[in-house]
Amino acid sequence: MKDKYPIELAQAINELSNEKSYRSVCHRHMHGQPMPSLNILSETVDLLREILFPGYFGDSEVRRESIRYYLGVNTERAFNLLKGQIQAGLCFACNHDEEISVEIHRDLAFDMARRFIAQLPEIRRILTTDVEVAFLGDPAAQSKGEIIFCYPAIRAITNYRIAHALLKLDVPLIPRMISEMAHSETGIDIHPRAEIGESFTIDHGTGVVIGATSIIGNNVKLYQGVTLGAKSFPLDENGNPIKGIPRHPIVEDDVIIYAQATILGRITIGKGSVIGGNVWVTNNIPSGSKIVQFKHRESLYNEGAGI
Amino acid sequence: MKDKYPIELAQAINELSNEKSYRSVCHRHMHGQPMPSLNILSETVDLLREILFPGYFGDSEVRRESIRYYLGVNTERAFNLLKGQIQAGLCFACNHDEEISVEIHRDLAFDMARRFIAQLPEIRRILTTDVEVAFLGDPAAQSKGEIIFCYPAIRAITNYRIAHALLKLDVPLIPRMISEMAHSETGIDIHPRAEIGESFTIDHGTGVVIGATSIIGNNVKLYQGVTLGAKSFPLDENGNPIKGIPRHPIVEDDVIIYAQATILGRITIGKGSVIGGNVWVTNNIPSGSKIVQFKHRESLYNEGAGI
Amino acid sequence: MKDKYPIELAQAINELSNEKSYRSVCHRHMHGQPMPSLNILSETVDLLREILFPGYFGDSEVRRESIRYYLGVNTERAFNLLKGQIQAGLCFACNHDEEISVEIHRDLAFDMARRFIAQLPEIRRILTTDVEVAFLGDPAAQSKGEIIFCYPAIRAITNYRIAHALLKLDVPLIPRMISEMAHSETGIDIHPRAEIGESFTIDHGTGVVIGATSIIGNNVKLYQGVTLGAKSFPLDENGNPIKGIPRHPIVEDDVIIYAQATILGRITIGKGSVIGGNVWVTNNIPSGSKIVQFKHRESLYNEGAGI
Amino acid sequence: MKDKYPIELAQAINELSNEKSYRSVCHRHMHGQPMPSLNILSETVDLLREILFPGYFGDSEVRRESIRYYLGVNTERAFNLLKGQIQAGLCFACNHDEEISVEIHRDLAFDMARRFIAQLPEIRRILTTDVEVAFLGDPAAQSKGEIIFCYPAIRAITNYRIAHALLKLDVPLIPRMISEMAHSETGIDIHPRAEIGESFTIDHGTGVVIGATSIIGNNVKLYQGVTLGAKSFPLDENGNPIKGIPRHPIVEDDVIIYAQATILGRITIGKGSVIGGNVWVTNNIPSGSKIVQFKHRESLYNEGAGI
Amino acid sequence: MKDKYPIELAQAINELSNEKSYRSVCHRHMHGQPMPSLNILSETVDLLREILFPGYFGDSEVRRESIRYYLGVNTERAFNLLKGQIQAGLCFACNHDEEISVEIHRDLAFDMARRFIAQLPEIRRILTTDVEVAFLGDPAAQSKGEIIFCYPAIRAITNYRIAHALLKLDVPLIPRMISEMAHSETGIDIHPRAEIGESFTIDHGTGVVIGATSIIGNNVKLYQGVTLGAKSFPLDENGNPIKGIPRHPIVEDDVIIYAQATILGRITIGKGSVIGGNVWVTNNIPSGSKIVQFKHRESLYNEGAGI
Amino acid sequence: MKDKYPIELAQAINELSNEKSYRSVCHRHMHGQPMPSLNILSETVDLLREILFPGYFGDSEVRRESIRYYLGVNTERAFNLLKGQIQAGLCFACNHDEEISVEIHRDLAFDMARRFIAQLPEIRRILTTDVEVAFLGDPAAQSKGEIIFCYPAIRAITNYRIAHALLKLDVPLIPRMISEMAHSETGIDIHPRAEIGESFTIDHGTGVVIGATSIIGNNVKLYQGVTLGAKSFPLDENGNPIKGIPRHPIVEDDVIIYAQATILGRITIGKGSVIGGNVWVTNNIPSGSKIVQFKHRESLYNEGAGI
Repeated sequence: MKDKYPIELAQAINELSNEKSYRSVCHRHMHGQPMPSLNILSETVDLLREILFPGYFGDSEVRRESIRYYLGVNTERAFNLLKGQIQAGLCFACNHDEEISVEIHRDLAFDMARRFIAQLPEIRRILTTDVEVAFLGDPAAQSKGEIIFCYPAIRAITNYRIAHALLKLDVPLIPRMISEMAHSETGIDIHPRAEIGESFTIDHGTGVVIGATSIIGNNVKLYQGVTLGAKSFPLDENGNPIKGIPRHPIVEDDVIIYAQATILGRITIGKGSVIGGNVWVTNNIPSGSKIVQFKHRESLYNEGAGI
Repeated sequence: MKDKYPIELAQAINELSNEKSYRSVCHRHMHGQPMPSLNILSETVDLLREILFPGYFGDSEVRRESIRYYLGVNTERAFNLLKGQIQAGLCFACNHDEEISVEIHRDLAFDMARRFIAQLPEIRRILTTDVEVAFLGDPAAQSKGEIIFCYPAIRAITNYRIAHALLKLDVPLIPRMISEMAHSETGIDIHPRAEIGESFTIDHGTGVVIGATSIIGNNVKLYQGVTLGAKSFPLDENGNPIKGIPRHPIVEDDVIIYAQATILGRITIGKGSVIGGNVWVTNNIPSGSKIVQFKHRESLYNEGAGI
Repeated sequence: MKDKYPIELAQAINELSNEKSYRSVCHRHMHGQPMPSLNILSETVDLLREILFPGYFGDSEVRRESIRYYLGVNTERAFNLLKGQIQAGLCFACNHDEEISVEIHRDLAFDMARRFIAQLPEIRRILTTDVEVAFLGDPAAQSKGEIIFCYPAIRAITNYRIAHALLKLDVPLIPRMISEMAHSETGIDIHPRAEIGESFTIDHGTGVVIGATSIIGNNVKLYQGVTLGAKSFPLDENGNPIKGIPRHPIVEDDVIIYAQATILGRITIGKGSVIGGNVWVTNNIPSGSKIVQFKHRESLYNEGAGI
Repeated sequence: MKDKYPIELAQAINELSNEKSYRSVCHRHMHGQPMPSLNILSETVDLLREILFPGYFGDSEVRRESIRYYLGVNTERAFNLLKGQIQAGLCFACNHDEEISVEIHRDLAFDMARRFIAQLPEIRRILTTDVEVAFLGDPAAQSKGEIIFCYPAIRAITNYRIAHALLKLDVPLIPRMISEMAHSETGIDIHPRAEIGESFTIDHGTGVVIGATSIIGNNVKLYQGVTLGAKSFPLDENGNPIKGIPRHPIVEDDVIIYAQATILGRITIGKGSVIGGNVWVTNNIPSGSKIVQFKHRESLYNEGAGI
Repeated sequence: MKDKYPIELAQAINELSNEKSYRSVCHRHMHGQPMPSLNILSETVDLLREILFPGYFGDSEVRRESIRYYLGVNTERAFNLLKGQIQAGLCFACNHDEEISVEIHRDLAFDMARRFIAQLPEIRRILTTDVEVAFLGDPAAQSKGEIIFCYPAIRAITNYRIAHALLKLDVPLIPRMISEMAHSETGIDIHPRAEIGESFTIDHGTGVVIGATSIIGNNVKLYQGVTLGAKSFPLDENGNPIKGIPRHPIVEDDVIIYAQATILGRITIGKGSVIGGNVWVTNNIPSGSKIVQFKHRESLYNEGAGI
Repeated sequence: MKDKYPIELAQAINELSNEKSYRSVCHRHMHGQPMPSLNILSETVDLLREILFPGYFGDSEVRRESIRYYLGVNTERAFNLLKGQIQAGLCFACNHDEEISVEIHRDLAFDMARRFIAQLPEIRRILTTDVEVAFLGDPAAQSKGEIIFCYPAIRAITNYRIAHALLKLDVPLIPRMISEMAHSETGIDIHPRAEIGESFTIDHGTGVVIGATSIIGNNVKLYQGVTLGAKSFPLDENGNPIKGIPRHPIVEDDVIIYAQATILGRITIGKGSVIGGNVWVTNNIPSGSKIVQFKHRESLYNEGAGI
């Protein structure tokens, strides 16, 4: 008796199949090309992590006799996977009205992927400085190995440095997906367009947001919940936000920003400053400053009806 | 020598098998029914996501000739999966002392599932407004497609709108599981009982909490770390919290709340207000207000012994 | 034409295989031992969760006639998996210059694992108090079952209590991995070295950080975004942080700390105190205190150019 | 240009959806019950194999202290899986015109499954004789363990003994599926209805066929390619084969049948007989006989135009 | 001590990497195209099986209201998968010296795939006759459903009819892979080039071989171990077999061939003939003949030293 | 009502846990070592297949620039997997009464594995002759690639050549498992102890059996269903078969044996002989012979009551 086909299904299918209903929220695959795949991208980033930090995240044997074989295979594999995802990203982003052939995307993806691979040694060099400073700054860390293997900040920063290199090659969508992967896993949200110097570290990290036009110097440390955000942004004559205008902070070398601080707008936090927890900063801060929250109000217990 | 069976195992098994030890923290499956399954539920929500946004999250071919086939199959499949999970949820929640047969749960689940399916076209319509406003409000977004495909906020809001529709049909447990799935993936915690209007958006999102009795109007925007929470709640004569009393904020149309702001209690944030970052609000705010944190205290570097 | 081997690959492989490039960021597996495995550890923790809360997370049949079989099998399996992961952790952490044989690690792991298993009944007892208090304190919760099954806080606290027990047995690395697993899933970051009493609960939880030397009494409740952190830490003559010094807060019994509050340094929050949202506390707080943020500054809308 | 929807698809879908086309070769699931699942059945048989031969095919720890836990868990799990598959089999086989409720099938499946479980000790006892004789009869076997673990014959005979016990309880379809699983893996095709005594063994086995009404005594050995088949079968007035008539051979105790021999019809191969390879037998064979093929014709090489 | 890199590895890698060693047994992927994939092909054939026999092998709901949706989706998916595999097959088979672009293969694969799909209704019609005759001829079969769902012969014949249709469209390699899949699962080896009429059935089937140029009429039945093979084949001047010459038997309508019979060469088995088990036939057999093996030699037991 | 625990389960578990019941059919894992794993072994053999035939079975890129990397990685990985499986095999086979330490097995496995790897180039050389002759001898084969990729005979022969090399190094159990894997997939059962020369080929293959002490020369071809078996074997004073005595045929160079022929005992089939289908041979056959079956008996149709 409950085995019959519910009329609601037939009706919902009818309405959902109406082109007016889905037109503005569907994706038409051009040339039968697949969507970028979160699974393949995740495999790719894991492979890059293994290339950058051999022996930690994959099956590389780190011996003088054979490490080159592993790096040879892993690098070619990462190149191939990345090439495919970049092509999918190009296709996702392209204007369907234009007549761009699959071949043009494929060749472009090939070029972008090989230019990315060429930067891996430099990315490893910079990440080495990030690991170094994380180890020195954390009394709870037992070894650099523990930091590479376990710390969410290094995971998020690695994704950022990969995504940033891809974005500078004008790869569409893929950098964003790579940073969202780290965001979901670690709660750290670094826009791939942000510029971040060497020896960068984040402690704990959940809730950190670093906006697209942020510029961060060397040897900067952030704690959980810190926002480098935009205050507001100018609109064009149609009321749409004008894209590409610098709207996030510049944080100079050797700055520390404590938990839950919110730094908004195109302001500069001067070299060596220390920003305390939970403060809200919207003005330039001169070098060497220390900013703390106003003292809180203490009140006796039971004074009123709960807080 | 180390191959023997450690005595500690035998002892621990003995103690753990003592009914006194497990009685209050175990689950007895009634009628041999399975637990609700996070895996199946996750598959169900992905299927619904693909129905709502065809071409982004599954294998739907979006062509005029065949999209109806995909929607027909996916909708029936989602109906079947959901029916099963709702039944599992009813069984999880039911009072084991009563004599409710499996059949009654099955029929109830059938009815709840078909009534949910009937709401999918309307859910898609509202989500379209959420996507629209996210695109307009983010200078970094390249296309609506990118927002649908990548943005954690749209992911969390979709889960919320599905969970909310199920909760209004009195489906137990499942709505909570669906919102916790989004919470884990995005750090955005929206209680499925909250009422949220159209054109709703969240930026970055990690740490956002929206409590069960919150009411949010149209065209509201939240940033990361915003809490719409309860201040305290009255207890009954046994000292237990009285359930079902409104205890979270009302946020009217066109309000923006910036990062890490904490809004507590059954207060109203008036239409068009702007709440700055890191503030703590426990009183009504009139329409059109702007609230910012007290200015912080600046102090010269090296003044004292560290912060 | 695009089928040829890009020269960039050959060059990158060359540079990446240069020992100077990878020396400080690679891991050499001693004695061919495998790395600790996140997958196996995750399986282990799920198994422990099923042992502690029978019937919720696995396939245990909770019937008087057979529950002992399930606990017998699951406990032995957890013991075996844990033994393997502890051994991998010992090997990861050991000084490669010393000549410690595989056998010594294996025997040590065997002893640590069986001593851990012996504590499972007590861990279940304490977790029962955590579940109890979470249920009493949440007006939205329908049943204790819902809390055990769905609430991220119980998930994170369970991982913490397991990790803490392992850390007290001097197991290296594994406790940290277990707490990072919960951190990634729930946004709650509890250092396994922290000491936490009974009837502990966290609401929502995303962004909570509890540092390594924190001490928390019984019946304490935290909200999302709360930090129990270090203010600064003394350096040794080489400028490295001195490890092992108490640097995080003591929170006494019956304290509530609201959302986004930041408590820094080796201070004491006295028994029964209530700390309001978004405040920044760096001094001792006497018992029974209530601390709230300074009142914010209200300003009329449209007073200036955006906030 | 190749991106368009081929007209052939639309036409084929039209024709294939015509009820006349699919009516006689489709399966309508009654009451929404699932089909019997080859995957679940395969898991079930593996579990039974592990129960019958502890320590070989699963994760059972064979220690005096804990083997009972493993057998307790595995037996209950096998019972549950089997119950579900039997119910699916009953539903597959039932006449859809009758009104048999899901509950009747469920209760029937419960009874069949528990009566099957009761026979496991006896099935193990008989299989022990099969293993014994296989070991004694094979000069290439190193140990009984090797035979249990590797030999296709023991695999196929185990499936047969399980399927036979189920068939005698009138379980539909499932016994056939279990014997086809072994057929596919080993090339040995034993109908579950055949009656086979103790100490039965098959060498190599590929191509062996044992028909539904065969009766085999104790201590019989078959080689690869042996057929115990039907010669022909009487038809009823409609020209359909009359079901249930004995039509396959009786093979008495202590018989050996060599490779590729074909024994057809309801004949008896007397106790202790030896049937040579490649012969075709359709008459009764008295006890103690030896049957060999006529001598072949030898011919000189190159006598004619190839063979 | 056993942790060092064995010199044998270095040497073997050296030799195996020598182009002389691998040149004649390696596969160079043209244009970076993937190999045909057994996994994808297996998925494709399962999908076709589900299209041909709705409700048995997949998740199709067979209801008048929705079966068209399932057939619509499954047919488009089968078309897409097949198109990809055909393209991979074309690339595998192509002469690498020629300059055939990826696009030509893609377009050719598109055409072949849509022409194959157009034949599905006819393939279903013929398979219906095969099922019918298998049911009528097997006294052990309970229903046509059991035959479709369980019988290896129908599995192998379905693969054959699919592979044959593809081969007639000149698809390379893929037909062979499809028939080898059935060969491995069922032990039935039907060359896709063979011509086989309607109402064809095989009993048990293991060891059946049907050669490439065989022609089989309507209503033919084979038993296990039957070979329709080639006797010998003429060589060309270089001693290579001349390809494409008819060299396997013609079996006319209504023939039955019993177990292990071997029929060799381009001979004709006349209409309605019956070939007994284990015979070896190399001459034409007139219509209506019955062929049996010479009577075997019976001998008393214990006459000599074993057989 | 059907929710209770059936008494049959409790009883069966009791009986099955009785040590008398399981003693002779259980496996006690020594030193906690795992069983050899069919899954890992299957992965290992696939890896070896990819090493031997680069580009066909895995992800090797066959380019002059990088093939060495793939061979380097795959060879080391195969070495490691094999080492583990050999150790498991040694442990499975060892006499539990002796005190052999895990370390001795580990070192022995290391030595056996490296000596096996050293033979891979020679194994590839011989397999190249097998592929060559299969291509020349099959008019239906389009290319050597098709034979390597699709033909079950090459699959089975590859497994045999690997297993044979391991067996000659005295590796226990594992060779047998590798040949049974091929047996299950292809129906070809070659004992790893058999000695087989170069340029060996099998057509179709299902049902072929080659016994443990068989010796086969160069350039031999077998068809489906051919048995090279033992006639009988002498027993020792206890009635057990005497192990290690030659009891299977010697087949000299250039012999062809057609389908279903059965060759039994330590006889010699002389160089260049041709054995026809379905014959049963138990005597020596001089070089250059041709053996065919006696002519069959033809009989008119309808002469009696069926065959």
